[in-house]
Amino acid sequence: MSALWYDDPITDLDSAVRAAARERQSQLTKPPGSLGRLEELGTVLAAMQGTQQPRVENIWITVFAGDHGVTAEGVSAFPQAVTAEMVRNFARGGAAISVLAQEWSARLEVINVGTVQAIEELPGVLDARVGPGTANFVREPAMTVAQLQGALAAGRGAAERAAIGGAHLFVGGEMGIGNTASASAVACSLLALPAERLAGPGTGLDAAGVSRKAQVIERALALHRSDRPLDALQRLGGFEIAALTGAYLRCGQLGVPALVDGFIATVAALVAVRLRPELAAWLLYAHRSAEPGHRALLEALDAEPLLDLGMRLGEGSGAAVAVPILRAAAALHARMATFAEAGVSRT
Amino acid sequence: MSALWYDDPITDLDSAVRAAARERQSQLTKPPGSLGRLEELGTVLAAMQGTQQPRVENIWITVFAGDHGVTAEGVSAFPQAVTAEMVRNFARGGAAISVLAQEWSARLEVINVGTVQAIEELPGVLDARVGPGTANFVREPAMTVAQLQGALAAGRGAAERAAIGGAHLFVGGEMGIGNTASASAVACSLLALPAERLAGPGTGLDAAGVSRKAQVIERALALHRSDRPLDALQRLGGFEIAALTGAYLRCGQLGVPALVDGFIATVAALVAVRLRPELAAWLLYAHRSAEPGHRALLEALDAEPLLDLGMRLGEGSGAAVAVPILRAAAALHARMATFAEAGVSRT
Repeated sequence: MSALWYDDPITDLDSAVRAAARERQSQLTKPPGSLGRLEELGTVLAAMQGTQQPRVENIWITVFAGDHGVTAEGVSAFPQAVTAEMVRNFARGGAAISVLAQEWSARLEVINVGTVQAIEELPGVLDARVGPGTANFVREPAMTVAQLQGALAAGRGAAERAAIGGAHLFVGGEMGIGNTASASAVACSLLALPAERLAGPGTGLDAAGVSRKAQVIERALALHRSDRPLDALQRLGGFEIAALTGAYLRCGQLGVPALVDGFIATVAALVAVRLRPELAAWLLYAHRSAEPGHRALLEALDAEPLLDLGMRLGEGSGAAVAVPILRAAAALHARMATFAEAGVSRT
Repeated sequence: MSALWYDDPITDLDSAVRAAARERQSQLTKPPGSLGRLEELGTVLAAMQGTQQPRVENIWITVFAGDHGVTAEGVSAFPQAVTAEMVRNFARGGAAISVLAQEWSARLEVINVGTVQAIEELPGVLDARVGPGTANFVREPAMTVAQLQGALAAGRGAAERAAIGGAHLFVGGEMGIGNTASASAVACSLLALPAERLAGPGTGLDAAGVSRKAQVIERALALHRSDRPLDALQRLGGFEIAALTGAYLRCGQLGVPALVDGFIATVAALVAVRLRPELAAWLLYAHRSAEPGHRALLEALDAEPLLDLGMRLGEGSGAAVAVPILRAAAALHARMATFAEAGVSRT
């Protein structure tokens, strides 16, 4: 098999800039360590951007939408039609991510990687459908290899547009009724966990619904379980999950920091990091989702998220809420005075 | 004794707006509860501002600075001169709070309520010294009743300027070498706790230093302990702590939401809420400080802060980092589409 785009190297963080950033943090007018996690964030952003003047002002948000054949098994509290309806809501500015993107003056694009039915032309929405929703993975692989490559490439394109647009930060979001079931299945496959460990209420299943969802996932795992990242993604994933995986990989290649949202996005990150462990250096984790399985995913990735506000909406909304924390960390690193500059005494 | 300004009534939150806000949250295009704490924040901000279109854009930050006689006992890792040096750093834009205020386009004012020595005139710094630092409370009350009233009034004035300026949110900060010792003493006095429960490293004491600090506080408590809020504040507090207390009280009277910063600011809030329990409705808590005693203070106030990033700088910096979370909650509440408006199906 010929080399694929995601085999290209992931960019290294600039270790000299990182060392200088650590030194700079120790000189800024504050007791050492008193900015807590913002100090390490400022240091990492400096190393990612190769400058002691990091900035997190130009934010690029791409939301990928796709449908899931597994909804036929009754794994979601909402009807499948909501995926396309929400794409229209994104375009009209009424969704949570639309409001947050506007609030932070972020660029928001929506990519339809595979709703069941085509959607009319909408402003800010790209049609990149690789299929009419995935197949029902309880019966057959969720997608073909060609569909997987197409969905990964849709994510690659988003990361490339972000880089060309001069983005300081990439935020990926997702919309797809049924996608917590798909994401749970992929993660259980890669982490060798039983379905009940990761299956949760998603948009709002009750306990009986969660139990039924876990059984559906368990049946799928019996058929498709694999510890190979792209195999698990192809057999059990969703188009929007694969697109996020592709976007994160390309972000790492292009040197664009990516802020990972909640449960679904973290599964996409898990696939990407299992494929290319060095990508981990480019991923920051925004929040701990209320979806119970998120905790185990974050642990598997050794990730400590920034926020814990009980959010579980997806769309990239948790990441969007966390963006200003990174912006603050960058600004503090870049612009606080040193003890010497300010003439402030030290201990 | 004649009625004092802080005996005037605290404004009630608008319960009709709050009920309508809860109903609105249930109609917005998201699974119920999926925005987690942002839903309650949006609802509370609506009730505080009396509108379904709450906004957190116009931010007013006042940092109060004062010196502490108790520094003579060796309770801080930094020399007392740093209080005035940092006031200059605030004015020149080099401090953490200066950078954050600029980043969020917030109005920042600094009020010198009592450095040991007068400070030359500086842009953005008001001279409102009520004394040359507090007295050493191990030997005598930290301040006179007149000084207490003066410091409270300095805070009242800041809240009034914020209200006149149309602020959607007030953030109070503090700077004062020795003020974790003072704040710990006030809180131990009001909560009937031993000093070792609340004394911590502050700007960077080692274990021996913390132990020494606890002994100093214990000696002061033996002399001055009181469960009456203003008595404890007068005997053991600091001018900047009293000013924060006054600011919070006036915010509640004027109906300006206040976002409480870390350890010191929470003690000021504790004094204010013990004095006027109904004020609690106007106070939001920004973050859990790394100063160990903060946890007990938050519990005493039944407060669940928004962030937990290991910060312990003061200056209002933790609150400033949390401001965009409130801004996001307000924007989402005000501008997300309802299911009916967006034509999105429900469960």
